[in-house]
Amino acid sequence: MTVIATSSSLGLAARVASILSHELIVAEEKVFPDGEKYVRIPRRVSGDAIIIHSLHPPQDERFVQLLLTIDAVRGVGASRVIVAIPYLAYARQDKRFLEGEPVSVGVVLKSVEAASADALITVDLHKPSSLDEWLRIPHANLLPVQHLASYFLGKLRDPVVLAPDKGALARAQLAAETLNASFDYIEKTRDKITGGVSILPRQVDVCGRDVVFIDDIISTGGTLIAAARSVTSAGARSLYAACTHALLISGALDKLYAAGLKEVVATDTVPSPVSKVSIAKPLAEAIAEFLIG
Amino acid sequence: MTVIATSSSLGLAARVASILSHELIVAEEKVFPDGEKYVRIPRRVSGDAIIIHSLHPPQDERFVQLLLTIDAVRGVGASRVIVAIPYLAYARQDKRFLEGEPVSVGVVLKSVEAASADALITVDLHKPSSLDEWLRIPHANLLPVQHLASYFLGKLRDPVVLAPDKGALARAQLAAETLNASFDYIEKTRDKITGGVSILPRQVDVCGRDVVFIDDIISTGGTLIAAARSVTSAGARSLYAACTHALLISGALDKLYAAGLKEVVATDTVPSPVSKVSIAKPLAEAIAEFLIG
Repeated sequence: MTVIATSSSLGLAARVASILSHELIVAEEKVFPDGEKYVRIPRRVSGDAIIIHSLHPPQDERFVQLLLTIDAVRGVGASRVIVAIPYLAYARQDKRFLEGEPVSVGVVLKSVEAASADALITVDLHKPSSLDEWLRIPHANLLPVQHLASYFLGKLRDPVVLAPDKGALARAQLAAETLNASFDYIEKTRDKITGGVSILPRQVDVCGRDVVFIDDIISTGGTLIAAARSVTSAGARSLYAACTHALLISGALDKLYAAGLKEVVATDTVPSPVSKVSIAKPLAEAIAEFLIG
Repeated sequence: MTVIATSSSLGLAARVASILSHELIVAEEKVFPDGEKYVRIPRRVSGDAIIIHSLHPPQDERFVQLLLTIDAVRGVGASRVIVAIPYLAYARQDKRFLEGEPVSVGVVLKSVEAASADALITVDLHKPSSLDEWLRIPHANLLPVQHLASYFLGKLRDPVVLAPDKGALARAQLAAETLNASFDYIEKTRDKITGGVSILPRQVDVCGRDVVFIDDIISTGGTLIAAARSVTSAGARSLYAACTHALLISGALDKLYAAGLKEVVATDTVPSPVSKVSIAKPLAEAIAEFLIG
């Protein structure tokens, strides 16, 4: 069994290979003068191969690299090609919100299958049922919320875990159980007299308490920044944010610190300056299950 | 029947719609802050739809846009989705030249099919048999060489058409028939005494004659620039270059003019400053054949 790494998830792949005691092969990559990508697997493999390749920005280029890598790995003798996509781009466009739109996640997943992947593992997919909906190959989705929450163990005083909306309340609850904390979701309200907007927990009082915002993705961090201001005004002690996928677009991290966040923590599905929690262990376990199953 | 245009081939799609007297719908396109592409077809279609979308650089982004567009068109009621890709990126990686490489063209074609295209039309594909090799859906490849050669009718004196290598000699012959010209292919030779390299026709003498270099793609134009110098030294009168797909990477057009080319002519498979020959008519005819067939 061989773990195939690309530049997209090199550190994570190396960790997974080490945990599983499997050989690690790093794909050769280059870009032609016209912009076409080139990938080559520098030696033959025997048995199963696991490609670990995340689709963080530039996501279209990484998507093509992934498809090329799957085909190349197939060509060097792998018996099964298991693909792990720690961050799956286009996962939020999971239905036709407006008529005339594509289901982008379906398009991406069908291409991965068409490139001849034998199984797919994702991490904290925006809508996990997208896998059932679009794939015929075996698949699994890891939810590393408790793993992520554990980072804060022993660091917080009287903590409250806050989800960005009602739909994400289960995520906050999972993290809260790990931290023995309260949990709630935030809601935007407008003061009828002043017109001012505040974004606060629906029920829980944050005064004097440590607050952990938890979400699947931090992209531009817009809502989080606004919520941080409201929660600070409401007397919260220290603010933290935790997410699985830290895209941190357009200087989001600086803006979060400027908004009063004490610390931002993410996993290594997207390599970032705040990727302090590795998903290597749960990913290695999921891969091992696939290999047995 | 509806022609769907994207920013990738807007002018060509408009021409094709006009020739076929079909409705033209221009897809809405945007890019999210994190770089993900968004496409929307702004109204429903009835009957067959033709998407015309070329994969010139940035090819990976256009590739994703194409897959999203196919899925979106499928969602607005098209009975068949015929896809025309005037320039197909990754077509030159059509086999595993080295062990460990992908067959990139196969990966691209399989994704287009997986996105639910019902038929595919390409133009001057690097290896036309790639379509047979990788597609199960109906397909056709247009070869607009005579169309391109016609541009030069009445403009040349005692012309010679030159192919860049032996494998492209049939292309030069086709163009030469249209122009009532001689044809040959060029070869690189090294002077055993001086060590100087010259790139000249194998047999035909170019002295005092107009020369048309013909190729499928002009990318960086490297070989063409070197050949232009040799052919000029050999006494050629005026030099022209004609290609189907003008990628013209890294200032290639300026370099070609600097190397003595009098004119560079290409089709509109890739929109460029030298796209003087439209393939709209042959493409419209090919589409009409698909619709009947």
